[in-house]
Order: sequence, then C-alpha cells, then structure tokens
Amino acid sequence: MEKLHDTAWRGFASDNYAGVHPEVLDALATANGGHQIAYGEDAYTEHLGVVMAQHFGDGIEVFPVFNGTGANVLSLQSMLPRWGGVICASTAHVNNDESTAPETVGGFKLLTVPALEGKLTPALIDQQAHGRGDEHRAQPLVVTITQSSELGTIYTPDEVSAISYHAHSLGMTVHLDGARISNAAASLGVPFRAFTRDAGVDIVSFGGTKNGLMGAEAIVVLNPEAVHGLIYLRKMNMQLASKMRFVSAQLIALLEGDLWSRSATHANAMATRLRSSLEGVHGVNFTQPTQANGVFATLTPGVADELRKEFRFYDWNTATGEVRWMCAWDTTEADVDNFAAAVRKLV
Amino acid sequence: MEKLHDTAWRGFASDNYAGVHPEVLDALATANGGHQIAYGEDAYTEHLGVVMAQHFGDGIEVFPVFNGTGANVLSLQSMLPRWGGVICASTAHVNNDESTAPETVGGFKLLTVPALEGKLTPALIDQQAHGRGDEHRAQPLVVTITQSSELGTIYTPDEVSAISYHAHSLGMTVHLDGARISNAAASLGVPFRAFTRDAGVDIVSFGGTKNGLMGAEAIVVLNPEAVHGLIYLRKMNMQLASKMRFVSAQLIALLEGDLWSRSATHANAMATRLRSSLEGVHGVNFTQPTQANGVFATLTPGVADELRKEFRFYDWNTATGEVRWMCAWDTTEADVDNFAAAVRKLV
Amino acid sequence: MEKLHDTAWRGFASDNYAGVHPEVLDALATANGGHQIAYGEDAYTEHLGVVMAQHFGDGIEVFPVFNGTGANVLSLQSMLPRWGGVICASTAHVNNDESTAPETVGGFKLLTVPALEGKLTPALIDQQAHGRGDEHRAQPLVVTITQSSELGTIYTPDEVSAISYHAHSLGMTVHLDGARISNAAASLGVPFRAFTRDAGVDIVSFGGTKNGLMGAEAIVVLNPEAVHGLIYLRKMNMQLASKMRFVSAQLIALLEGDLWSRSATHANAMATRLRSSLEGVHGVNFTQPTQANGVFATLTPGVADELRKEFRFYDWNTATGEVRWMCAWDTTEADVDNFAAAVRKLV
Amino acid sequence: MEKLHDTAWRGFASDNYAGVHPEVLDALATANGGHQIAYGEDAYTEHLGVVMAQHFGDGIEVFPVFNGTGANVLSLQSMLPRWGGVICASTAHVNNDESTAPETVGGFKLLTVPALEGKLTPALIDQQAHGRGDEHRAQPLVVTITQSSELGTIYTPDEVSAISYHAHSLGMTVHLDGARISNAAASLGVPFRAFTRDAGVDIVSFGGTKNGLMGAEAIVVLNPEAVHGLIYLRKMNMQLASKMRFVSAQLIALLEGDLWSRSATHANAMATRLRSSLEGVHGVNFTQPTQANGVFATLTPGVADELRKEFRFYDWNTATGEVRWMCAWDTTEADVDNFAAAVRKLV
Repeated sequence: MEKLHDTAWRGFASDNYAGVHPEVLDALATANGGHQIAYGEDAYTEHLGVVMAQHFGDGIEVFPVFNGTGANVLSLQSMLPRWGGVICASTAHVNNDESTAPETVGGFKLLTVPALEGKLTPALIDQQAHGRGDEHRAQPLVVTITQSSELGTIYTPDEVSAISYHAHSLGMTVHLDGARISNAAASLGVPFRAFTRDAGVDIVSFGGTKNGLMGAEAIVVLNPEAVHGLIYLRKMNMQLASKMRFVSAQLIALLEGDLWSRSATHANAMATRLRSSLEGVHGVNFTQPTQANGVFATLTPGVADELRKEFRFYDWNTATGEVRWMCAWDTTEADVDNFAAAVRKLV
Repeated sequence: MEKLHDTAWRGFASDNYAGVHPEVLDALATANGGHQIAYGEDAYTEHLGVVMAQHFGDGIEVFPVFNGTGANVLSLQSMLPRWGGVICASTAHVNNDESTAPETVGGFKLLTVPALEGKLTPALIDQQAHGRGDEHRAQPLVVTITQSSELGTIYTPDEVSAISYHAHSLGMTVHLDGARISNAAASLGVPFRAFTRDAGVDIVSFGGTKNGLMGAEAIVVLNPEAVHGLIYLRKMNMQLASKMRFVSAQLIALLEGDLWSRSATHANAMATRLRSSLEGVHGVNFTQPTQANGVFATLTPGVADELRKEFRFYDWNTATGEVRWMCAWDTTEADVDNFAAAVRKLV
Repeated sequence: MEKLHDTAWRGFASDNYAGVHPEVLDALATANGGHQIAYGEDAYTEHLGVVMAQHFGDGIEVFPVFNGTGANVLSLQSMLPRWGGVICASTAHVNNDESTAPETVGGFKLLTVPALEGKLTPALIDQQAHGRGDEHRAQPLVVTITQSSELGTIYTPDEVSAISYHAHSLGMTVHLDGARISNAAASLGVPFRAFTRDAGVDIVSFGGTKNGLMGAEAIVVLNPEAVHGLIYLRKMNMQLASKMRFVSAQLIALLEGDLWSRSATHANAMATRLRSSLEGVHGVNFTQPTQANGVFATLTPGVADELRKEFRFYDWNTATGEVRWMCAWDTTEADVDNFAAAVRKLV
Repeated sequence: MEKLHDTAWRGFASDNYAGVHPEVLDALATANGGHQIAYGEDAYTEHLGVVMAQHFGDGIEVFPVFNGTGANVLSLQSMLPRWGGVICASTAHVNNDESTAPETVGGFKLLTVPALEGKLTPALIDQQAHGRGDEHRAQPLVVTITQSSELGTIYTPDEVSAISYHAHSLGMTVHLDGARISNAAASLGVPFRAFTRDAGVDIVSFGGTKNGLMGAEAIVVLNPEAVHGLIYLRKMNMQLASKMRFVSAQLIALLEGDLWSRSATHANAMATRLRSSLEGVHGVNFTQPTQANGVFATLTPGVADELRKEFRFYDWNTATGEVRWMCAWDTTEADVDNFAAAVRKLV
C-alpha cells in the first residue's frame, strides 16, 4: 500500500486525528506470529491484567474493547438493571457524542445536570437522585464523571472522593469515563488509582486511543461487586475482538513503561503553551480552565472561520462562538507557535 | 513490550487464532504519521472505496467496522424496520455465535430453517417467508446467507442468484455474511462480484480478519436502496473507529493487490491437503464437503480428546461427536502433515 | 352509544372474538364509584392477591397486566439477564404471534425446538440447552411451555413436573404461558396449582381475556426468587394500568367463584362436541388431539374456502391446509351443530 | 364480586383515581354480546374512526391503545428512525413518569429543555435542535409538547402553531401528548383541531382515561406521512387489544356526544373553584397558572403533611415544597369546599 497522506500536516481538531506512537507499532509486531487463542485467552491479554493491576491494585477485572463509546455503554449497562438511570453532566460525552447508543443499545436513561466546567458535585447529583423505589421514574443508580472532562478540566482526588462517598451513601455506584485519563493523571501528578480506586470509583473506561494507540480501550472493574455479566455484555454489544492480543498489546505498550505519562504530559504541555501564547491577547477569551490537553476560547467574530482556512479545529458551541483546540501526543512546539501566531495575526 | 508467546505454535482451532500478514503490518506503518481526520474522512478510507469498487463495481458504499458480528448486525438492521425478521439457516453464525446481539442490539428476529450443509435454498426460504402484512408475525423482509458457509461449503453463483431472485420476488432483500468471502472466491475461482452483486445480493459483510488482517471488516452496500442510515447505525452501534485510517489500510493491503487471493487459496489448499491425507482412513468420517478452509469429521470415540492433548481444535456438535479443523493463511504443509499423522496414529 | 353489531353472530375463529361474561360486566360496575389509588394500590388489586393465593398458595406475587403478549414478554424478561435465551416449542405463541416483542422489547432470544403436538419434553429441551458459560451463545436460562398448548393439547401434571425438574437441574427456570390455563385445568379436572406450582413452574402468565374477560391477564410469580424487578418492568413495558381496579375486578370475577371453570368447561365441551360430530366423516382429518377448546383438521381441498363464506375461522398451516376451529365460553350447541352440518354438507 | 371500597371517598391526588363515567359503562354493555373480529376489525373500532374524523377532519388514522405511556412511546417511535431524538420540556411526562420506556422500548433519546410553566417555545427548541447530519449526536427529529401541560398550563392555538411552523422549518415533526387534551379544549373553548391539526401538529396521543374512561387512549395520526408502521409497532409494543371493541366503545362514548366536554369542563371548574377559594390566603402560594384541572402551590412548612392525614395528593417538587392538587370529572363542589376549608384551617 502506498502512502496517501502528508505526514507533516497536523491540526488542533482532536487528539484522535493523531496517529500511533512508534512504540505501539513495535508492540503490534512483537505480538504477531504463530497462533494465539482468540477472544481473549491469549498471553498478551493475560499480561495486560498484570500490568493494569500494577496501576490499579489487585482484585480488578480488565476487559479490552474497541472504542470509547463501547467502553462507556458497556460499563454503564453492566452496572444497571433494565430500568436504570445514570446521572451525568449535561456536557458528558455519553450524553452528546454517542448517538443513541446509551439509550438504544445500553438501554438506560441519562439523567442530566448542567454542570459548571463540566464537573459534577454532590449537590448537582442531588438534583437527579430522587425517586428511588418509584416505578414511574428511571431509577438513578449510577453516577458517571469524565476525567479529564469534556471541557479540559480535572477533578481533584478529593472531588472524586466526595462524589463517590455521596453516591454510595445513596445506593449508587460510580463510573469514570477515562477517555483522557492519562492526561488527568499527568496533570495531577498522581497515579491513576489516586483519583479512581482510592477515591471510591467502581469502574473505569480506560482510554488509550486518544493517547497514541491505534484503537484500544479497556473497561477496568475496580469493584467487581458493582457489575454483572461483562463477559457476556462485551460479546452481545459487539465489542469482543477475535484477535484480542493486538488490542491488549497496545495497552501494554502504553502502560508497562511510562509511555502513557510521556505522551500525556507532552500533550498537556502543548495546551499550556498554546494558552500562554495567547493569554491576554485582545480578541481571545478563554472560557474554561486549561488543565489537560484542551483549550477552549471565544474569538473575535469572523476569526474562527478565517483561521480554519489553514488549521482544522472544532466549534464547541455555535451559539456562543466557543471553539476547542486540542493538543495530541505528537503536537510539536512549532505547531503550537505557528498556530498561535496565526491567531494573533487574525484577531 | 516483550514477546510473550511461542510463534512456532499453530493449531487447527480457528482462522482467527492466526496473526497478521506482514504486508498488513507494513500498511499500518505506512498509514501512520501526521494527522488524518477521524471517523472516516481520511485518505485511506476514501481510497478503500476505490479499491472496493474495483472488486464490486461502481455505485457501492463501504463502511469499515471492527468485527464480523458488528458487520452482520449493522447490515441486517440497516435493511429492516423495527418489526422485521431475517430468514437464515439454523446453522448461521448470526444465529449461534453472536449472543443476543441480533435480537437485543439489532432489534430483529431470526427466522431459522434447518439447512443441509448449511446452505439455504428458495424452497427452504419459503418455510419462513409467510405472514407478510400480519402484524402478529415478525415480517420476513431479509434473507441472509453465509459464504463460505459455517460448514465449509460454498454456494455457486447460480445458487446465490436463485436465492436472490426468489427473495426479491417476495419483496425481500439479501445479505451475504462474508466472514470468509475470500475463501469462497478463491475456491470458486471467480471474482467477488460473481456471487454477490452479479448474483443479486444487496449487501455484504466483507470479512478480513479471518484472512490475515489484525481486525478489520467492511459493510459493502451493493444496492444503496436496500439500506437506511448506515452512517448513523454504525456510530449508534459502537462500531465507528476514530482512527479509521488504520482499519481501512488493512483492507486496502488485502484487496489492492492479490493478498486476499494468495492467503485464501493457501488456506483452502491446506484444508484440501488435510482431507486428502485422511480420506479413507478408518475411524475418520468426513461429515461435510470440504470446499473452503474447514474440514468437518467424526472420529473414533476417544480420539478427539486424545488428539487435543497436542493440537487445539473445536467440537462442532457434541451430540454427534463432530469436530471442526480450520486452516489459516499461515498453516504450513508441515503443520497439516504432522496433524494428519497424529490422527492416523490415534484412530 | 348505539349498538353497531349483530349479537347473534358467532364464529369459530378465536375465543377472543367472544365478548364479556355478564358477571364480569357486573364486577366492573361494582368496582366503580369514588376514588381508588391508581397504579395498583387499590382494594381490588389487593383482594386479587388473596384470591390468587387461594388457587396457587401463599407467598406468590401477582401483577395484573393488559394482555397476553405483555404477560409473556414481561415474565420472561424478569427471569433473564440481558444475554439470556428462552427455550420454547417452535409452535409457541411467543415465537409466532408476538411480532418482535420478545426480541426487541423483551431483549431475549428464543431458542426453538420443533415439538410434536406443540409440547416440549426434557429431551427436546436438551437440543437447545447447551453452551452455558460460552459468551458467544445466548445463554439458555428459561424454558417456556404453553398450557393448554397452541395446538389444543395439554400437558399432564407429570409431564410438567418432568420438564421443571429437568430445567432446574440444568440451572434454568420455568415459565408457563397460560393464555388458556382455565381450559387446561377444566380438561384435566385438577386445580391450577397441580400443573404449575406443585409441578415446579416458577411463573405463570395467567390468561383471562380468552375465557370471558374484557381484557385482563396477570403475571403470577410462584417462585419470587426466579424473577427480578417486575414492578419496574411492568411500568417500563407500558403494561401498568392507571385504573387497575378495573383489571383486577375482572380477574376476581373470574376466579373468586367458579366462573373460570364453568366457562372453560363449556368451551372445551363445545370443541369435543364439534370433533365428535365430524369424527369419521370422509374428507375431514383431525391433525391434533382435541384436549381443550380447539379443533385442528385438514379438509378436502376447496372446502375450507367454501365454508368460510358462512363461518369465520383461521388457516393454521397454509402449506398443509390445516385449519383451526376454536370454541369460546359463549359458543352454543346450536352453533356447533350448524357448523358441523355445514362441514358435512361440503366435504 | 362484592364491593370492597368506600365510594364516597375522593381525593385530589390524580384524575386517574376517579372511576368510570356511567355512560361509559353503558357503552361497554352495548358493545358486548356475540362475536366481533379481534384486534381491531370490529364495528366499534371502525366507527371510532368516523367519530374521530368529526373532531379532527378527514384523512386521519386512529389506533386505540391501552394507556398513555403506550400512546406516547408508540407515537414517537413511529415518527423516528433508530438514531432519533425528541425535543421536550424537562417537565414532560415522557421524561419523568414513563420509566425508561422511551429509551429502552421506544429506542429514542429525549433532548430536554428547562421550560417555564412546562411549555416549549421555538427559542427553547433551538437549544436542542442542532447537530443535524452529525452521526455522533442523536438526530433531533421530533418535538413533543403536552396539552394541557404537566403543570396545568395551556398552549394557545397560536403558540402551538408557532412551534409546529418552527419545527417543520427545521425538518422536524410535532407530537402532542394529549393525556388531558379534553381539559385543554374545554379551557380554550375551541375544538380539538384548533390546537392540533389546524396548528400543524402531526400526531396526537389522545387521552381518555383521565377524563372518565376505564382505560382507553388513542393515537390519532393527523399527518400520515409523518409516521411509519404503527400497525406493526402497536403489536410489537404490546399495546394491541384483542377485544378492541371495548376500548373503542369507551372512546366513542366520550367523543360521539359531548361527554368529553361536560366532564372536562367540570373538572376545570373545580380546579378554578379550589384556586379561588384559596387565592390570597396567607401561607398558600400558587406556583403555576391554573388553566386546566390542576392546581400547584407551596404551603407553610408542615401543612402539607398535616393535610395529607385527611386528603390524598402528591408532592410535585420535594426540594421546593410544591404540591399538586388535581380535580377530576367526579370531583364535587363539596369536595372542593371541604378541602379548601381544611387548608385554610391549617395554614
């Protein structure tokens, strides 16, 4: 197959526009050759369990899946009866970017709350936590939070603990959508378990694709009593890879050493650099704290469209004119500086 | 990541125990580097459309997905209203090996017919094709066939044409589960379109994973009028890859040259070699024609268990003692000869 | 409202073509007046629990619902996880006459077995009871039988016991579709519990509509450990009546005295009378035993269409020419004799 | 069956605590006797179509169903593809009181908007009407409004027209949840069609149960091009009555003469009387306009609980202490006066 694209082109649209880290490609080659039992009984999937336990502790269960929507919908479905509801921020990925998968495939209702900076709090959860035992209402049984959030913000371990404690006290369990979990850990400078297992989270969608993998996520069950039947649900929901060794190998490459940290730290630094470059520039108003690898801003009218002629990025809110700029593991300082210069020129 | 497995070990359990063809790994590396638009607007997915059209003709639509169950369930769902039924052989993969995905996720009912050698016929279809317009009955609106079949048999182009003609005359459309479509084309010595588009098939689940890819399948819509909303259904059903270029690149590597044919022809030849080696051996009774890469047989009681101490393979029917031996793109003549010798020694 | 129909017209199409027994209309009037708490906290629904316990014993749970499909789908759903399968005869109502409700709404897969006279046996169950623990297969966790069956036949208490014992020994639970349960009890001359609770059945769809009610069925849970969340599932599946007192009152009218028995015994006797009248008549071949209120036969070609000009009834199997004649609680001896005379005249 | 309840007891909890109007019981008796074709091919269901056309005009389609949740979920499902979303007020019954039926059974996502007095507007709709063509987002294709609303308020015909015009201009269709449609028409003093068909509404859930029927609602399709497959969806969703003549007869009794208007006008008048009795009373703060048969208020702390010892009614919002008092077709002036006196005494 011939190369069909310009490998020099990079934008600020999404961390999943980036490719695969070379160490991950190497791992795929290493996992190749000979036969391995399909559907997860291979040596790499077994080893992934060991590697994950080094990060999250013993007694966990790990289910590699294809993508983030799959990880979220399966995780939540495994925590819920058929009549269950999930409390989430109205900005949550599961509420906005997963089509009707939560409802139609997962079979649960999202109970949404407007949340400042995309982060839930115990008080916000209470807005939807009522009606237990009333069969007319979807039963609020799970809380899901996103770390780092869809708005580039981060929960401290204490904030997560407060949510988990509150949720558990109301008979609910807690899911963490970690599509960008490495960016959060790198930003906080703590291990994954500090804001997950040690903070009372029951289950995590562990994201790898946005941090330099080809396509690999894992459901990490921290509290096996909170879930049911994931082995069946994964197959039923069409997320069971036959040649699973190649999914697991990607996650091993990310997590066995410090690749997860190197890549995420870099992406975060590039977002910080971008923000610093434009902080105080007239015509650029930052709308969210920049705590991970995303920068949110509003621009002088017309600027976004002009800028997009050269650089790709997304509108976040067309009503307010808010745009999102994402940095990836492969974003370079030069990429950031060129982009910042272009913004400054236009505003 | 270190290598964790013995690359010399190969068995006869399934063609998805095999790894990835080196040319496919090369293609993944080629597709890497720089940014590409996520979710399918990349150069490789676009080119895959061109490559597929070289095989299936113009005017088709191609939707890369993660796995075969995904391809089947999405394809069938896209052809059906919410009250639809699908006529299939009772031996169909979609009926036996996809958990409740067809029913729960796809939302359709399978109308099964016992079928000799795993192949439907117009007469068999008629057993379930009744009740149109009766709201009490799931409406039989689609016929699905598997090529090569779950029993290692193959429909001739004329047999497919007869099914399509009959189905269309009854107001039904036709899906072909091509998890092993390359094995069928190689065995028949005809292009894919001879037994799909030219034979009236409306939509194909095109399988790559079992023929040496890492994990890549595609829904190929031959008759766009027969389907609805696949772009939405793929996302909704959690089969939309963010870094799709790496799924598409695998399929390009398979289909742009003759890799598909080389690999499938070899796998088929190994199955033929295995059958020939054991034909006439007392204690080995072949139960299905060997037309693709699978061999089905019953053995002298006790032999299967003994054999399994050294080689991995599946029971197909525990009631009758039928076993299945699959050959893959990487099965060697020595693998076959060693296995056949072991069988001869035990029976 | 004016009367719009000829109350003298009666046919042999279905027991649900018949109207409402006068005692049931009286009960509706009795339950009327004043306010009662909606959704089941009324005096009549409470009393129905007492009445049902007189028939089925203590410790049961009763959930009135609107119709038979609702009772079946809810019952089965309450017994199953999301990845569950239900073993049934291929002739079962739940398989043929409930559209895609079992699959789409209930979310389970039907694992069908061809069954002589519409009745399962332990050996037939074994044809589908395999694959436990294999996530690729819908898990066979429930057996459902219909009493009296769709073919007008009846399980003896011993036959039900054998099924329950076998199912339980395999880790499965047992549901009985009792759309015509009164016809079965009347025919056997035993109380309901003889072939349900005492025979190991875990849950019953108790049918009233076909036996002279206006529209009332009940899920009767004999083994509360076998089900989960029916209170939520009934609402979720849109089977929760707001003015439930009027559903419960119908069932009380049927079951508090002997109305259930009088009506069912009469309907059965009319079917027996019809069969006796035509037994031995050349051109009429009975295809099933006549054990309840349905008669199945094939007729000399052309006769069915001729007969239908005067009387309404259903084709059962257009391929074989089998027809079904149903008797209801209001079928008269004269109705039967006129119909039999017409058949004799035509064959 | 003996009478088990005190017919003199009446409360203010819900209009579905009330019983059945005597004219409706008469209609049930009239529809009884002889045989009628099941599942809707009876004389009464046919006549209901004629009666509905007198209210809504020609060219409509009418589907009797069991209950309001059924009417809503089926209506919305019939208007949507599998990837569809429905814009509604966050106070909508379909969002709060139908468990997970919309999501799990209907298979669609509710896109909610906080709405003053429970009423949508074009501007509020715009908050959720974005993302058309983006497969990541549930496609906003339907708007649903409730008339009279869950907060006892009423849309004027012009307000409905503005919504319909706006929705249609965005490629969406419009559903009206008319669980209390008669109360709205009576309050506005206009025919049903003034704020439905003539105001651009495509489909109506026509409610009868809350206005004196035993249990009967109807889906009234005003624009047949906006829906698909209702005949199949009704069966599939377990809302198809076998003895449908008794559902249709209730609706005929309500709609052929002026029973709908008499009953609704009376219920509305009782609500107005209740409000007038308490207007200006210190300790009673009305929280919503009283435009139909419901009164919403907050009371001096402790009063609600005290009042509930004698009268049954619901908390509407436990956070704010808001309560709801509903009047029914059978609420008497004395009931209202006694209740108002009790309130005055307690505050």
